[in-house]
Amino acid sequence: MESIKGFKRTKYCGEVSLEDVGKEVILTGWVDTRRDLGGIIFVDLRDRTGIVQVVFDEKMGEELMEKADSLRSEYCIGIRGIVEKRPPDTVNPKIKTGEVEVRAKELRIFSKSETPPFPIEEGINVNEAVRLKYRYLDLRRPDMQRNLMFRHKLYQVVRNFLSQNGFIEIETPMLTKSTPEGARDYLVPSRIFPGKFFALPQSPQLFKQLLMVAGFDKYFQIVKCFRDEDLRADRQPEFTQIDIEMSFVDVDDVIEINERLLQTIFREMLGIDLKLPLPRLTYKEAMERFGTDKPDTRFGMELVNLTDIVKHCEFKVFADAANKGGSVRAINAKGCAVKFSRREIDALVEYAKNFGAKGLAWIAVESDGLKSPIVKFLKEEEINEILKRLDAQVGDLLLFSADKDEVVFDVLGNVRLEIARRLNLLDKSKFNLLWVTEFPLFEYSEEEGRYVAKHHPFTSPMDEDIEFLETDPARVRSKAYDIVLNGTEIGGGSIRIHSTELQKRMFKALGFTEERAQDRFGFLLEAFKYGTPPHGGIAYGFDRLCMLLLGLDSIRDTIAFPKVKDSSCPLTDAPSEVEPKQLRELHIKVDVVKV
Amino acid sequence: MESIKGFKRTKYCGEVSLEDVGKEVILTGWVDTRRDLGGIIFVDLRDRTGIVQVVFDEKMGEELMEKADSLRSEYCIGIRGIVEKRPPDTVNPKIKTGEVEVRAKELRIFSKSETPPFPIEEGINVNEAVRLKYRYLDLRRPDMQRNLMFRHKLYQVVRNFLSQNGFIEIETPMLTKSTPEGARDYLVPSRIFPGKFFALPQSPQLFKQLLMVAGFDKYFQIVKCFRDEDLRADRQPEFTQIDIEMSFVDVDDVIEINERLLQTIFREMLGIDLKLPLPRLTYKEAMERFGTDKPDTRFGMELVNLTDIVKHCEFKVFADAANKGGSVRAINAKGCAVKFSRREIDALVEYAKNFGAKGLAWIAVESDGLKSPIVKFLKEEEINEILKRLDAQVGDLLLFSADKDEVVFDVLGNVRLEIARRLNLLDKSKFNLLWVTEFPLFEYSEEEGRYVAKHHPFTSPMDEDIEFLETDPARVRSKAYDIVLNGTEIGGGSIRIHSTELQKRMFKALGFTEERAQDRFGFLLEAFKYGTPPHGGIAYGFDRLCMLLLGLDSIRDTIAFPKVKDSSCPLTDAPSEVEPKQLRELHIKVDVVKV
Repeated sequence: MESIKGFKRTKYCGEVSLEDVGKEVILTGWVDTRRDLGGIIFVDLRDRTGIVQVVFDEKMGEELMEKADSLRSEYCIGIRGIVEKRPPDTVNPKIKTGEVEVRAKELRIFSKSETPPFPIEEGINVNEAVRLKYRYLDLRRPDMQRNLMFRHKLYQVVRNFLSQNGFIEIETPMLTKSTPEGARDYLVPSRIFPGKFFALPQSPQLFKQLLMVAGFDKYFQIVKCFRDEDLRADRQPEFTQIDIEMSFVDVDDVIEINERLLQTIFREMLGIDLKLPLPRLTYKEAMERFGTDKPDTRFGMELVNLTDIVKHCEFKVFADAANKGGSVRAINAKGCAVKFSRREIDALVEYAKNFGAKGLAWIAVESDGLKSPIVKFLKEEEINEILKRLDAQVGDLLLFSADKDEVVFDVLGNVRLEIARRLNLLDKSKFNLLWVTEFPLFEYSEEEGRYVAKHHPFTSPMDEDIEFLETDPARVRSKAYDIVLNGTEIGGGSIRIHSTELQKRMFKALGFTEERAQDRFGFLLEAFKYGTPPHGGIAYGFDRLCMLLLGLDSIRDTIAFPKVKDSSCPLTDAPSEVEPKQLRELHIKVDVVKV
Repeated sequence: MESIKGFKRTKYCGEVSLEDVGKEVILTGWVDTRRDLGGIIFVDLRDRTGIVQVVFDEKMGEELMEKADSLRSEYCIGIRGIVEKRPPDTVNPKIKTGEVEVRAKELRIFSKSETPPFPIEEGINVNEAVRLKYRYLDLRRPDMQRNLMFRHKLYQVVRNFLSQNGFIEIETPMLTKSTPEGARDYLVPSRIFPGKFFALPQSPQLFKQLLMVAGFDKYFQIVKCFRDEDLRADRQPEFTQIDIEMSFVDVDDVIEINERLLQTIFREMLGIDLKLPLPRLTYKEAMERFGTDKPDTRFGMELVNLTDIVKHCEFKVFADAANKGGSVRAINAKGCAVKFSRREIDALVEYAKNFGAKGLAWIAVESDGLKSPIVKFLKEEEINEILKRLDAQVGDLLLFSADKDEVVFDVLGNVRLEIARRLNLLDKSKFNLLWVTEFPLFEYSEEEGRYVAKHHPFTSPMDEDIEFLETDPARVRSKAYDIVLNGTEIGGGSIRIHSTELQKRMFKALGFTEERAQDRFGFLLEAFKYGTPPHGGIAYGFDRLCMLLLGLDSIRDTIAFPKVKDSSCPLTDAPSEVEPKQLRELHIKVDVVKV
């Protein structure tokens, strides 16, 4: 293999242009394609910037031609040559450098390549396991190169904005203390302290709060976090977070600076001018209008409450829900009475059952009247009220859910989305951002038989609801907020509790004994004794943000070396077995139950 | 405790200036000091930018005065007031805001503080364990605030430079595969694969090489790395690295861009204009002149080889060393015959023994002749030659070591440094950078009875030495380089092997079986089959760089939440015990031998 010595690249392939005509260039890269036209060989040379055509002509000597003839796809080479204007009939308008070509005078082959397991080109349809096993080849493909270069730019845009706005980047520890609240920790056995473990951070939450106690005022970090959960399609065991915290602020202050951050991101990354302020919905409003706390507002089909209309109707399902503390709500799927066949409607009813619906009543408003399994149970005035409130017109399909509120919301929220998917309403070039605020502070966990923190135990209740902490926890709203993009939560945070007293009341409401609170969060409670500023912050899922901005379907396409669903890495085969000596040093034994 | 609502800070404390006189400001921060002069209370209010004096005057009402009277050190407060010019006789020239004060109209107490365990002020002399336990208070001290803000800026300067120079930031995995070569890994048990483990990366070495195979051309990352080693004073189990890799380059290219990076760092961080190119020493020259591969060139006292002069002398120690493949070398400690007492010289001899010296011969050149335990064994002409070669003058102290080269270098290299410390020659305001190049590719490990890689097994040999890989490994030099600042290695790297063939020869020379190489690095060898570019890179110890630029003695003072020597965290008490359920889920058992 030849050496790079004395062969200093003068340009990237994709940057060769008409301005270089007549000049000598040294280019390096990979053989994208080679065509032998007899006496002349064309090589498309590729690097991260693009492709340029290199011409090997037999006039340049036999030795060079023989070498060029030996080239195959993905050989890594360098060429020295003269840039020439292509004859008009050979101009390739599909590539940036299509008006020029480089007549080679020298060729160096740095290394050969076996035939790759899949073609190095955009949009291949290859099993992802194979792509990940050969990730270094997958990453050569122009789309993956673009994704990671986009991600690179996103890091810089975010950090530059935050730095320019007075935020200080501070690293927090990766080897830290296990806090069994929240998700499952990844543990790291200690060699020096037998039987003790570090935990990898699920987030730098406690540390960033301590940094506020320490007076850093505004903190940020783009940081790896870890959760040992069963992986859903869009989760990774290690993921990246934009972590932000600020002092002497209330909800509006955090939202204001983050809106400017988002505006900067959209302008710099996509050339899109976000109008500020962004819409805000309270949690309550989001649920009532969209059935979810992460509404996708790229399309309508909002939920409509019909409880009052059907309270006394003869249709038992509706009347029961309405009278037993539940509700009856509906969405109007505009035009879907025409667009959907009866079978498609049935499929929708089945789909609804995934979310706890016992059924999904519907009315198809057709030109020759209403088609529906339920109208026969309803009085005409009830029907008219319903049609009026839903603004039903001929062609519309009305879908009803009647149950406890949480079921109704879940069912209609999901049915709404499913219809949008079927109607292709989820336009990836549209970016609808909104804040959801005033989340409930607690949610009741049937499993634990107690209230648990909806965000985390450091979230501040809203000032006006503090008095209900002990008497009516369910009604206490928090100073938490989520930022939602096209129906996906991309970030969330809260104003934190900064009073030791209030923090103790909060722990009590969560059913923590004093001892347990001390054991878990003793150092935070201790810190709070020394003059804690009011503070709050936010964290964004960086991988997910990147994915949405790029219009991708998988966060794995924004990560250089992702894990697959079972958390393993097909490239390195991690996790793997280790040597017994390593375990002995860590004072642990493998404890696998042999079956 | 009072709320922040409607109390939006208008300025930082340290930014209030004469320009604000007459204006109303809202400031927030911590009570640094409070002085009650009867009818008037002065509070020094502190935030991360500095201190400003706030005046509470009884004219403003009893309620305000009572509240001001309740203030104590480190209370977290906000004030609204009018900026006033101080009377000339009360101007405080020691602080930025010393010409103004703020007459308070409103005071909010956000939270009270107990008396801190140590004063929140610069340069305190407090046990580090206490400082780390209350790190959030320690970090309030102005010097720690400055250190972390400096570190923040260093991140940005480095990333901006690299981004502007075409480097792409790419994250590599934290949960990866254990490679028992090198230092000890931190392991992370897998829940999903019983008996298998992830390892935390000691460096992203393999991944950055794969990114070169993937065609990213120029990569960087500021990234946490992990080594489970016994901690020396300047090591942390988790540390931060500036990691860089580039394709189609040789040694000079890597050095060139890194010199520009260093120039930018010194200019932006310290206002120092580095002259480029930086000095370069080969490993051989560094050892011969300074006895170390990380020479501190802030002072002279270079080593001088006297082997040829003493080859036939009567002093057996010298003659033996000279004739049995070792050497006799000396340094001239200028003026030290006068500066050091006989006892101090003896102490130096003792010090030398720490590095394997059996003794340390010396000659004190005094005005009335030579004082020395050894001159009696030497002929006059030998003495004259020695004095001449060492440029000895009256007052000088000559120190000799005779042994195997490696011992001589270690002894004199360290004695040289020790003398510099005693003479206060290690000027922290001086920044001497240099490259050390052409390291040996291998070093012989007595413990393993084989050659091991001096850097790592992917380091490329120098082209002209490849032929000796099998026949004379000891003479093979590598394309490795270190960057040294004031005698500390701040970074190091190499051009990597990019040929599968050569990589296989390298593994063989290291005594790896094919199987072992496959098992450890199979995916890298596999990747190398598909067109690997020539590539190389470097990694800097970020913590250490930061420490040296700041003139600090401990990297812990550059890290927000460092670990102590035994790798534990005095703040959070990590590592800690975990719940049995956590271990069961991870299929491990604690295996502590009870004593």
